[in-house]
Amino acid sequence: MALASHFHPLAASRVHPCPVHLHSAAGAPSPSVSLAAHHHRLRRRFSAVVAAAAASPATAEFDFKAYMGERAAAVNRALDAAVPAGDPPAALHDAMRYALLAGGKRVRPALCLAACGVAGGPEAWAMPAAAAVEMVHTMSLVHDDLPCMDDDDLRRGKPTCHVVYGEPIAVLAGDALLSLAFHHMASVGSYPPDVDPHKHPARVVRAIGELARCIGSEGLVAGQVVDLEMTGTSEAVPLERLEYIHLHKTAALLEASVVIGAIIGGGTDEQIERLRKYARSIGLLFQVVDDILDVTKSSEELGKTAGKDLASDKTTYPKLLGLDKSREFAGKLLSDATEQLAGFDKEKAAPLLHLAYYIAHRQN
Amino acid sequence: MALASHFHPLAASRVHPCPVHLHSAAGAPSPSVSLAAHHHRLRRRFSAVVAAAAASPATAEFDFKAYMGERAAAVNRALDAAVPAGDPPAALHDAMRYALLAGGKRVRPALCLAACGVAGGPEAWAMPAAAAVEMVHTMSLVHDDLPCMDDDDLRRGKPTCHVVYGEPIAVLAGDALLSLAFHHMASVGSYPPDVDPHKHPARVVRAIGELARCIGSEGLVAGQVVDLEMTGTSEAVPLERLEYIHLHKTAALLEASVVIGAIIGGGTDEQIERLRKYARSIGLLFQVVDDILDVTKSSEELGKTAGKDLASDKTTYPKLLGLDKSREFAGKLLSDATEQLAGFDKEKAAPLLHLAYYIAHRQN
Repeated sequence: MALASHFHPLAASRVHPCPVHLHSAAGAPSPSVSLAAHHHRLRRRFSAVVAAAAASPATAEFDFKAYMGERAAAVNRALDAAVPAGDPPAALHDAMRYALLAGGKRVRPALCLAACGVAGGPEAWAMPAAAAVEMVHTMSLVHDDLPCMDDDDLRRGKPTCHVVYGEPIAVLAGDALLSLAFHHMASVGSYPPDVDPHKHPARVVRAIGELARCIGSEGLVAGQVVDLEMTGTSEAVPLERLEYIHLHKTAALLEASVVIGAIIGGGTDEQIERLRKYARSIGLLFQVVDDILDVTKSSEELGKTAGKDLASDKTTYPKLLGLDKSREFAGKLLSDATEQLAGFDKEKAAPLLHLAYYIAHRQN
Repeated sequence: MALASHFHPLAASRVHPCPVHLHSAAGAPSPSVSLAAHHHRLRRRFSAVVAAAAASPATAEFDFKAYMGERAAAVNRALDAAVPAGDPPAALHDAMRYALLAGGKRVRPALCLAACGVAGGPEAWAMPAAAAVEMVHTMSLVHDDLPCMDDDDLRRGKPTCHVVYGEPIAVLAGDALLSLAFHHMASVGSYPPDVDPHKHPARVVRAIGELARCIGSEGLVAGQVVDLEMTGTSEAVPLERLEYIHLHKTAALLEASVVIGAIIGGGTDEQIERLRKYARSIGLLFQVVDDILDVTKSSEELGKTAGKDLASDKTTYPKLLGLDKSREFAGKLLSDATEQLAGFDKEKAAPLLHLAYYIAHRQN
């Protein structure tokens, strides 16, 4: 069953999703299944699915935890420097910093840096781009949380931006973060002293184009619009529409993060397209896992309101397919992603390989 | 009296306004002056001020009306093509088009194109940038009009975006327009067939940096934040703070429009900085004239709610200085702007010269 092939009218949009297949999804929807009862059994089964897809990676010695820790620290330093504390207008900068430096796993920046590395560039070249994708991600969270949108009070275990700073400042902080992302990528001052962005301005222009495309009416915003249209409706949301939302709302920015890194790193067009496919698979994987975590974890473990999707009648993969099939789908996406890395240098591809496993296995 | 020199704390921000002088403003504030009674007399006087500054331009034969009409038509075509009608998500694209194609004088795009021309490039090079500045301008209008901001129901004589499409779509349409601006500037497809943007990618990167800077916490957004802080307070707003708001909320994007055009056109650093000074003067001029029109024109003539600034207790130049001194200030800004054009080829500088006069003399 090709999920993205015979799509609803939205398929006419200019997003061309990489076809992903869910072989066993047909006729699967079983929202009545007792999720709590299946929890432990499914968790074991999911581990089995993922273990099969893993096929003993040859990079067992790669220290993923150290890699992620160092990247997150470097990205946090870049973000901290990009929005000066205390500068006027103070309320605006405070709100930007509050949203931007609230922690988070920095998965998108790590993908950007790792893709730069696998494409041949030193990772440092992509640091401004990595900071930029996190700014865009933060902007989308701040705007999506607004009272007129998803009306969320809690994010990463803390009150959301508009709760602390008020709605007008939250809207404006989002706008400022969005423009700062592009300013950051285009400014000489964002790059490390030993990196000359003017050496490859064509790469920067192309990367900026990719970043811009994944935000607007072909990306994050389109996903949010369709998501809002679906919320609170009593009619059943078809799987195709759910996938449209996730491909736009989540996968588009993950894809851009990887592709931008690859462009800045100097990858060939063929390499960039392979990494794009990798990114699309992990993009959808990210959301499927998110949906699974929402029904299997407590609010405390997630740092946000758990079960919210279920409570608010939001369509999710577990609700449409059942937890079982959702986990199988996740395993398939993981193996699709890792396949794309086969042609790259094993050592250089290790971070992207481990990032895919991390996204599949994360517990919050 | 130097308005921008001994500024309030906000002067510590990274915006460095070009100093403009208002020689006769000291002790002028006379909010109690009967505005209606002075209307006709002041209108005549303003014409006199502007005539003095004009000093008979040598480009009398330049057909400004035809120039503006052709530029506006070309920009409208570019904007129309940039947001496809009917493409899904339809509500989003409809809202973007509604806001973007609502008419308007296209002053910013015209400044961008004219600056490209005076800096040496064919104007066509700057068409994507010209469309981009209008997208950014439209985004700022859509977000500023939101119920949680200025809560405006009428814009250019039509209901505002959120009135027609709802608040969530208005927020998202603004976000999409903002990202589209950068996408448009970075995409090969935006440029005319005979223009190769890859020939000068370094110019495109620099121009994108300028555009991004003028939006966020150093530009439009900063101005709106301080403007919101001032609205509804009973304390008197000092002239310095009023100028901060206008330099950020209005002048920053006018400055970027001119500077981006000059960069794309291949101007030297010295030319770009002279054009930046020109732009800063007309930027403030634009807002002073806006304030004057608000108290001297009817809603019908303006296409928006007239007298709103006065009614909402918003600080304006006429309220702080009186209409008289506001008009004098406008005349001084006009002559400051035109002085910067002296070193350029007269024929090529004609559009920018006439644009300055147009901004000073416009009636809506």
